[in-house]
Amino acid sequence: MAELTRLTRHSDARGHLVSVGASAEVPFSIRRVFWIYGNTARFTRAEHASRGTTQMLVCVAGSCRATLDGPAVSGTALLDRPDASLLVPPMTWLVLTEFSPDCVLLVLTDTLYDPADTISDLDHFRALAAP
Amino acid sequence: MAELTRLTRHSDARGHLVSVGASAEVPFSIRRVFWIYGNTARFTRAEHASRGTTQMLVCVAGSCRATLDGPAVSGTALLDRPDASLLVPPMTWLVLTEFSPDCVLLVLTDTLYDPADTISDLDHFRALAAP
Repeated sequence: MAELTRLTRHSDARGHLVSVGASAEVPFSIRRVFWIYGNTARFTRAEHASRGTTQMLVCVAGSCRATLDGPAVSGTALLDRPDASLLVPPMTWLVLTEFSPDCVLLVLTDTLYDPADTISDLDHFRALAAP
Repeated sequence: MAELTRLTRHSDARGHLVSVGASAEVPFSIRRVFWIYGNTARFTRAEHASRGTTQMLVCVAGSCRATLDGPAVSGTALLDRPDASLLVPPMTWLVLTEFSPDCVLLVLTDTLYDPADTISDLDHFRALAAP
């Protein structure tokens, strides 16, 4: 199951704040942060797996759908709130779809960017991930 | 001067991606990430300084204004694009205003949350920051 984890939201009259950093919220050391936005035509994104990177996805504006397929986790989840996260383990094929025009997807990872970490061929991934 | 640093934006038909993690983009180890949103009434936020925390601010949706005052940097900057960052050094009084209703302000810091790190009294801050 691709299960969302609810994050603590600190709210008052000024609005909301969600903070992650302790091990309970992010089960890894944050090495890289990236954000995806401006997908006005609802293209599919990702369509790859990471060999050794764990990712935490949070949709901080708008919504999108994440579909995961791998030995550790598989399933789909609608990301539509800034206080819910989805963990994507290494060796998990990730497909991102259904971007709302205002979607901003925040991703925290435990590695710096390395093209060699990415598997972009589905057949190759399936061969590697097979038990 | 409160100067923005332009971040590299990777763009194609699917939209945009901005990634930070290398030392050139974030001049510290990321320990905590938080995001502020839902400020529909345009309240002022922050109004405090950190004793030992460096922060990097990026407005990933909408816009807001950051006003900085401290020995290292002072000035004001409109944060209105997801590919520009503003560095806030320790011992800098920070005031956030002019939130657009859709503003999502992303903040990366080099410390875990510690209430003792925050100075919320402006007179106290001025006394500590005085040369």
